[in-house]
Amino acid sequence: MNLDDLPIRNDLRGKSPYGAPQIDVPVRLNTNENPYPPSPGLVADLAEAVRATAGELNRYPDRDAVELRAGLADYLGHGLTTEQVWAANGSNEVLQQILQAFGGHGRTAIGFEPSYSMHPIITSGTSTEWIKASREADFSLDPGKATAAVEEHRPDIVFLASPNNPTGTAQPLETIEAILSVAPGMVVVDEAYAEFARTGTPSALTLLPAHPRLIVTRTMSKAFAMAGTRLGYLAAHPAVVEALLLVRLPYHLSTLTQTAARVALRHRAELLGTVDALRRERDDTVAWLRSKGLSVADSDANFVLFGRFPDRHQVWEGLLAAGVLIREVGPPEWLRVSIGTGEEMAAFRAALEGVLL
Amino acid sequence: MNLDDLPIRNDLRGKSPYGAPQIDVPVRLNTNENPYPPSPGLVADLAEAVRATAGELNRYPDRDAVELRAGLADYLGHGLTTEQVWAANGSNEVLQQILQAFGGHGRTAIGFEPSYSMHPIITSGTSTEWIKASREADFSLDPGKATAAVEEHRPDIVFLASPNNPTGTAQPLETIEAILSVAPGMVVVDEAYAEFARTGTPSALTLLPAHPRLIVTRTMSKAFAMAGTRLGYLAAHPAVVEALLLVRLPYHLSTLTQTAARVALRHRAELLGTVDALRRERDDTVAWLRSKGLSVADSDANFVLFGRFPDRHQVWEGLLAAGVLIREVGPPEWLRVSIGTGEEMAAFRAALEGVLL
Repeated sequence: MNLDDLPIRNDLRGKSPYGAPQIDVPVRLNTNENPYPPSPGLVADLAEAVRATAGELNRYPDRDAVELRAGLADYLGHGLTTEQVWAANGSNEVLQQILQAFGGHGRTAIGFEPSYSMHPIITSGTSTEWIKASREADFSLDPGKATAAVEEHRPDIVFLASPNNPTGTAQPLETIEAILSVAPGMVVVDEAYAEFARTGTPSALTLLPAHPRLIVTRTMSKAFAMAGTRLGYLAAHPAVVEALLLVRLPYHLSTLTQTAARVALRHRAELLGTVDALRRERDDTVAWLRSKGLSVADSDANFVLFGRFPDRHQVWEGLLAAGVLIREVGPPEWLRVSIGTGEEMAAFRAALEGVLL
Repeated sequence: MNLDDLPIRNDLRGKSPYGAPQIDVPVRLNTNENPYPPSPGLVADLAEAVRATAGELNRYPDRDAVELRAGLADYLGHGLTTEQVWAANGSNEVLQQILQAFGGHGRTAIGFEPSYSMHPIITSGTSTEWIKASREADFSLDPGKATAAVEEHRPDIVFLASPNNPTGTAQPLETIEAILSVAPGMVVVDEAYAEFARTGTPSALTLLPAHPRLIVTRTMSKAFAMAGTRLGYLAAHPAVVEALLLVRLPYHLSTLTQTAARVALRHRAELLGTVDALRRERDDTVAWLRSKGLSVADSDANFVLFGRFPDRHQVWEGLLAAGVLIREVGPPEWLRVSIGTGEEMAAFRAALEGVLL
């Protein structure tokens, strides 16, 4: 018996599991991880926090993760409170819960591609219909066309990623407001990379007071350098959080996850201290790629999309052969490189020069 | 604005979040937790394991949790291998993934109530239609009626809990085999409480070699005393695991969860060492309740269903007033008490005697 013999959902037939190859190479620049590991001090504090709580591991966790949500609200600022914040196992689970509450069979979600490829996957995974709209050739969003698409399709959920993945550029608030003004349902602004935005780029959090159907999602996987902890969260109107309580699996967030995320919040000065270095490295990478005559999308994130390569797979393979793993993702002819340490980016540049010779 | 003003899914309107009240009382016998906390040795080992892996928390976890699954396969025995085992954040997420792969809109799942109340909730949460079949008055399953229900409805998924929650009794393998012989789709045997079964009760794991559409789910929340870790898992044909890879959210299982579960497996002699004491306490509880003239369902689990109380809420409240929290769940007129320590059960007995005076 094999997979084809099983009665799986029809739309899964022939599909492959999502995910970048997990290949063990010296320089991993493929999943937008933060290259800076937690300090020995943070590690010791985390181990101590686990020691202090593990004696209660026979008990279920706080089902509503109240203390963690209070800490996240405090971190986000903008006057947000515990009741406006929700957390789950990575922003993927946050997005899935949003779709379970506001999507489902007979409902639709729209996104502007190229964008985060999990948005359509999680959408169809919840029996919601995915409507694919497009970005301009330079990956920007034309406000007139975007609002026209929303008015035409009247989706139950609009997905906007800002900064957008894999293209890297943040959305002007005016565009988000224009979409909010015509969207009949929920509008999700996925701000997984918000902390990396260039100076002067405001967060959609500032729009929350005026827009009760706006949801802003965040993660600890990127700027917080906690990808292994799997902690995603969101800010929204308290009623939105109430809606998510109806679909969340009870006790979805383990005691260990809640503990680790609270330790990360305590150490946020250290963790977010890596952001400036990564932004500088990113800006240098953009400048260097352009100096080589390559096309590069403006980036507000910890990655850069560059091209164009008629055979991008060959470039990807050439880099891999040199020990540098980047990501073959997004529009054809483009590749995405995550921003690593200075040493890692030097290795990337040397490898790319070798491939482009 | 409140919840009713939001465009939530129609079938969620008027619903309340699932979950037992989390009330801080001296004696908590309401969620079938294991009352024995991990030993100081286990806690120290866990803290050390977290210290040893936390230096990599800026990286995503092993997406396929290979080492943990190997350890779980080894624990389950029956010749099972890594490829036949899958793990997620609690058996709730395991069940949700099963429904996402094999259920969905236009598909159905059947269960025999009273049974685990999350089965229908997770079913409708994935747009799958729930078909409610019934148990006999003594909560047993009549094989003839059960197979007739499966033949009539031809569900895509059959749920069987064994030992059943909240009634407590395990299912004879013959009944499971009879259902497997007529079920057109997947058959899920939820064995969350398997380790507590009375001597001589075989696991449905023994049926796996002959039945490629059988899935047996387990958890570390009960016998393993790791409810706070949120680790559920399953054993099935390797093709079933491949199907789940198509719907699992990438990196769903954090590094910390994988680490903690592996520590728990290393300490299983200690953790499962509590099972015998809990079984004895359970059997004593059943005998004592019967000696009081109460009706009690046979129990293979770490809880006991007892009744019948024309006003069960009053009994529940009386116990709570005495500092003993049990669960108002299952068929009307019945209550469920989780098995605690000897001291906790003495407190339960004293409180119940006070209420029944």
